Formats: sequence, structure tokens, C-alpha cells
Amino acid sequence: MSDLLIKNVRVLDGEPSEILIRKGRIAAIGDNLDGAGADVEDAGGRIAIPGLTEAHTHLDKSLLGYDWYHNDVGGGNLMAMIDNERQMKQRLGLDPHVQSMRHALQTAAYGATLIRSHVDIDTTGGLKALEGVLETAEKLADVVEIQTVAFPQSGLMIAPGTAELLDEAMKMGADLMGGLDPCGVDHDPKGHLDTIFDLASKHGKGIDIHLHERGELGAFSMEQILDRAEALGMKGLLTVSHAFCLGMPDPARVTPLLERLGALEASIMTTAPASSPAPLVKQMAQYGIRFGAGNDGIQDTWGPYGNGDMLERAKFVGLRSNLRSDAEMYMALDVCAGGGAEAMGLERRELKVGAPGDLGIVEGVAVAHAIVTHAPRKLVVKAGRVTARDGTTLMDAP
Amino acid sequence: MSDLLIKNVRVLDGEPSEILIRKGRIAAIGDNLDGAGADVEDAGGRIAIPGLTEAHTHLDKSLLGYDWYHNDVGGGNLMAMIDNERQMKQRLGLDPHVQSMRHALQTAAYGATLIRSHVDIDTTGGLKALEGVLETAEKLADVVEIQTVAFPQSGLMIAPGTAELLDEAMKMGADLMGGLDPCGVDHDPKGHLDTIFDLASKHGKGIDIHLHERGELGAFSMEQILDRAEALGMKGLLTVSHAFCLGMPDPARVTPLLERLGALEASIMTTAPASSPAPLVKQMAQYGIRFGAGNDGIQDTWGPYGNGDMLERAKFVGLRSNLRSDAEMYMALDVCAGGGAEAMGLERRELKVGAPGDLGIVEGVAVAHAIVTHAPRKLVVKAGRVTARDGTTLMDAP
Repeated sequence: MSDLLIKNVRVLDGEPSEILIRKGRIAAIGDNLDGAGADVEDAGGRIAIPGLTEAHTHLDKSLLGYDWYHNDVGGGNLMAMIDNERQMKQRLGLDPHVQSMRHALQTAAYGATLIRSHVDIDTTGGLKALEGVLETAEKLADVVEIQTVAFPQSGLMIAPGTAELLDEAMKMGADLMGGLDPCGVDHDPKGHLDTIFDLASKHGKGIDIHLHERGELGAFSMEQILDRAEALGMKGLLTVSHAFCLGMPDPARVTPLLERLGALEASIMTTAPASSPAPLVKQMAQYGIRFGAGNDGIQDTWGPYGNGDMLERAKFVGLRSNLRSDAEMYMALDVCAGGGAEAMGLERRELKVGAPGDLGIVEGVAVAHAIVTHAPRKLVVKAGRVTARDGTTLMDAP
Repeated sequence: MSDLLIKNVRVLDGEPSEILIRKGRIAAIGDNLDGAGADVEDAGGRIAIPGLTEAHTHLDKSLLGYDWYHNDVGGGNLMAMIDNERQMKQRLGLDPHVQSMRHALQTAAYGATLIRSHVDIDTTGGLKALEGVLETAEKLADVVEIQTVAFPQSGLMIAPGTAELLDEAMKMGADLMGGLDPCGVDHDPKGHLDTIFDLASKHGKGIDIHLHERGELGAFSMEQILDRAEALGMKGLLTVSHAFCLGMPDPARVTPLLERLGALEASIMTTAPASSPAPLVKQMAQYGIRFGAGNDGIQDTWGPYGNGDMLERAKFVGLRSNLRSDAEMYMALDVCAGGGAEAMGLERRELKVGAPGDLGIVEGVAVAHAIVTHAPRKLVVKAGRVTARDGTTLMDAP
């Protein structure tokens, strides 16, 4: 059953009207639609927004459902945070399937219908995290579509055996090959990048690499990444997550990188971080770079922040890119909805006839108001099916 | 009546105990306290945090209570935003007393017991905004203590007649002399700064100047400000709001400014902005600079953001300064509580015997959790009097 008529609903900032979804797609938007045979929902004059897209998170590592994690590590030392996390996961006996169910359902309750999750592959946990998240992806197929990235969180060249595990992960069905700071973590950009590009090629998949390296170091790594993606003709198959280096204040250095990313139809995923340079909304649009956003890990050993709400993330995107006008706030929302879907290589989520029937009904007197207040969602719909009401998914988390 | 016994309350992350407030001050913290004659509240095991401090806002310009403002100006041009606001305030017939009541009560509902508000003084509105905010300060004296800054929002040297109005504002009872981007807005740093420092001296008051100018320009203006404050011996009487220039990535340029600010016991107020360089928590602490935070204007012609919640602002402070551990999250909270009070030249708000009886009872399993979730406050107490319950002040806004 995926036919749904939503009455008394405002399409973004428009006047109240109706949205009809048939066979999982938006069939009509207007007044007095023929909803014969469809379920009916009354939105009470609330605003409809497209299904949201969580384009960068880590479903396997949230501590949701556990006692509050008292963090004594802080944020100064990346390798210390990585080591602390790997040890804590073992100590707590974290079950990646259970944690990813909790995390994904909470994200869906906030209106996301698409998630891209990096999943730790390392020589301690092996493929257990991926097994758990793939099981979640299968169980939640009707609620939220989950892409997985095989992610060498603890390093690749510095952790012998990881490459073989990544190869195995791709065979198991990971959607993309991951990577991480080839200079900063592995201290071997050639070794790291040759390995992950080889594996991506072998399995005919795209790449989504974490690049936290800033300034000149990040620009250097970005060039090494672009060289390989161009040589392999990976149009539309390259994602760089974070890409702080694109926020460096030297257009002479950054512009060529932006032009090459645009020509590759590459994707950049951001958390819209406040504490580091970052790619910006209008900059990405100017160069035709696909731009998505994500909450990154939520309430885990890395820090107390985050809850899975991509509407609040749109607020952070707006704050980071200094967006203020109504038109600019639509751009912030799009990064967290249709733009993010496109950055994931999927169909844009938008409120248009023919688009996938993914949407949320939100509180607020205007779209900008809905973004800045991000109250619990009234209704969430995936492919014409109601998946959440009043901030809670219909399916219970374990 | 200002004697209050709060039972079953966790002092920050401690075990449940009791807090006794007598004659407006914290008289005891412990178990089985003698609350004879005091009102009694049961906190239900929730967390007590110190009264919050809104150290930088604009009570006269929020559009709270009006129809949602559809913003078509954006954030690119400072003078266009200033001109748009002055015109919109006239067009809407904004009543500064009504707006400041709404704004201040909403801020108090979120647990702030102290507010420093800049108030526009210009040749269009004259002293009307200050009259309105002073009336609010008087009416809300038992709910929230409000300091006012006479603020030449539309410029000083470029708007003849403004200096005389500022002089009048100080006579009316403004607590501090304001100022604004002496290069960026007035294009006359000497004229601007000589005028406001003369007025501050004449009235024996401190200064709180908005300095958005970035990089070298901001550093230049900061030096001109410091030269005057040092010459006048204004120890503890100088505040620079925003001070984006302190975030410039050149320690050789910034360190001398930080040392001079520390020696002056100066205050810096920040919004913890995501879209610009900014002063950081540990940096300010290192140099002994008093550091407060504020929401700046909320839901006004400048942008859709903000709601007056200084606990959410503590989250932004944490995100901006990359704070993650429990100890670091306490620092973020302190900037929005005791540290902010100190930056306003007032007594620190903290949960200690002898301190002012200002506190909030908040939801959360830990302080870091309370900060990142910032749920509506259960109870707000000012000098031992309950001022808000369940997110709503006992006094109604107009």
C-alpha cells in the first residue's frame, strides 16, 4: 500500500493544498485531487518538506540506549580518539546491528528517508559492524534506504590485514569504498589511495573518503585523489567527506580543485562544522559540485553532540554558510534533502510530480521557521507509506 | 519571599541532594537541610545549573509576536542590512517596550537571569528604543537583571546628531556606551573612538563595542580601542563584542592583542559564530580575558535564527571551540553562566554557598546531555524566587 493523499498541506511556503502519492511517487499536487483508494492524512495546514537525506553518518558507533558516556578524551588528538573508540566498543560489547537500528530509526523519526553510513572495518572488529548495518538496512528497507561505505577508521597501511577485510566487505555488499586522511592517519598517501582506488575499481563501486586534512596538506591529498579519479574516469563516483581544505582562504589554490571536482560531477559531504574551515553552499553550487550534509556520528565516544535530525543540520548548514534570506534557507534545506540525495547518486527528493514519494510534515509558520525551530516531525512518509508520527517511528527500535 | 529549598536535585553531575537559598543567596548545599520557613520545590532528580547569562543581545529589535518576517535581504551587505532594519522598524511600528518584554521573558524562560542588551540609538528612532528597554528592565527586575548599552547601530560620524543622542542616552541611565566597527561603518576610526571614549569618560561608564571587522582591519581597530582604554585606565570597563579578528590565524599578530586585553581585565562577548573566525574558549582563559556569550538578535530582520536559549548557545560555544569532553562542556556552560556574568562586571553565577540564588533545573542524564538536548527548563529561579516553570515564565509577555 503506497497510495496516500495528504490534505490541507502547505508545499514549502505555499497555500494549503493537497499532495497525492501513487505507487510510491508524487502523482499530483493541487486542490480536490482524486484520492480514490488512497489512504488519507490531514496535515492540519502544516508544511511539507522533501524527505531528508543523512548523507554522512556512522550507524555502527552511536551509544544510543547505553548509559551516558562520560568523555575524558576531548578533541585534541585524532589517533587517541580513534584508539579510545575501538577499545570502548570492545569494552561495552557494542552490537552494531542494535546500535544501527536505534540510530537509523531515530534519524528516520526526524524525517530522513535516505542514509549513507560509513561502517568501521578494522582488524579488531573485522566485518561484524558491516554485518550488523547490512542487517539493519534490510530490515528498514521500507523506512529508510541505507547505503554503506566500507571504512578503514583505524587506518589501512598502518594496520596490515585491513585491505583484505575491505575487499571482503565489498564482496559482502558494501555500496562504496571508504578511506581516511591518507597523510594524517596512514602517513602514506600513495599506498592508501592506490589501495582504495584499486579495490573500488575491482568491485566497480564508487569511493567516499574522509578528508579532514586542512590547508595545504588537504589540498595535496585532494590532488592525489583527483588524479586517480580522473585517470579511472570515475564521473559521478567520487565523494570526499568533510574536505576542510576547500575552506582554505586562498582562491588561487582552491579554485582549480573546485573546477576538477565539478568536472568529475563529484560529491562533497559536510557536517557544516563550526570549528574548522569548510566547503560552503554557494561555492559548491557555483562549481556544479554535488553537496550533501550529515550529522556524522551522534552521541558516541567522539563527543556528546548530534541527534540524527537533518532539519537541525539544515540550520547548521545555514549558520556555517551565513545563509539568512528565505531563498538562502531553501538552499540550506536542499543540501539536507534533494541535494544530499543527488550527492549520494540517487534521485533528488523534492516536492514535484514524478519525484519519489518521500516527505515530512513539519511544524512552523514558514520553511525558515521550521528549520530554525526543528520541532518533532508531525508525519514522515517514505514512498507513500507513513513511517513516523509525532516524532516517533511506527517501527520500534530494539 | 526569597527563601527556597530545592530537594532531590543534582548539582551539575553530582548525586541528588538539596540546595537551600536564603535572602536571595545560596545558603547551603547538602542533605537534610533545615528549610524552616522556606518554600519547597522537588526537582525530581533533575540537574541544577547556574543562572544563565545572555551577555550580548538586542532586546529592542526582535519581531517576536509579529507575523513571520520573510527575509529577502540576506547577509552579504552590512549597510544594506542596517538600512533595511531601520526602515522595517518604522514600517512595522515596532514598540521597543513590547518587543523587549517578549524577548526578555522568553530568554528568562530558558533560564537566563542576566541580560546585557544593546539598544539602537539613531536619528530616526531617537531615544524611543532605550525608553522602552529601560521600562522593561524596571518591570522585570525580579525576573532578569538587564544592562543596557547605548548603541549607534546606524553609525555615529556618518549620522550627525547621533553623538548628542548617545550623551542623552547615558543621562537617561544606559549602563554602558556602545560602538560599532569604527572603520567598517563610520570609515573614521579616530572620530568614532574618540567620541565614544569621551562619552564613556564623561559619564563614568564602561564601553561595549561591536567589532565585526576581520583580520588586519579588526586588529588595527582593536589596537586603537586598546590604546584609548589603556590611556584612560579602564581596567574591567572594556568589552569588545564579536572580536572576529582574534580568530585570525597569526599568533604573532593576535598574541599581543590578547595580552593587552588580559592586562586590562577586558571582556569579550561572542555568539560562537560558525561562519566567521572567532575568539575561542581556551584562548580567552589562557590570557585571563573575561568571556561571555550571547544569542545576538533573535528572529529579526537580520535573520531567522535564535530563540534566547543560552543553554543551546552553550552547545554552539562547544561546537565552535571544538569542546567534547565533560570537563570541556563545563567550560562551555560557564561561558554562558558565571563567566558571562563576570564579563558583564557582575558576580559569578555558580552553584556555591554564598553565590547569588540564580539557577535553573534542567532535563538530562548529565550536564553535557542537558547542553546538547537543551529541553525546556523545568524550573528557573532568580534570587530564590521561582520565575519560570516548564519552559514558561510566571509573568505573561504582552
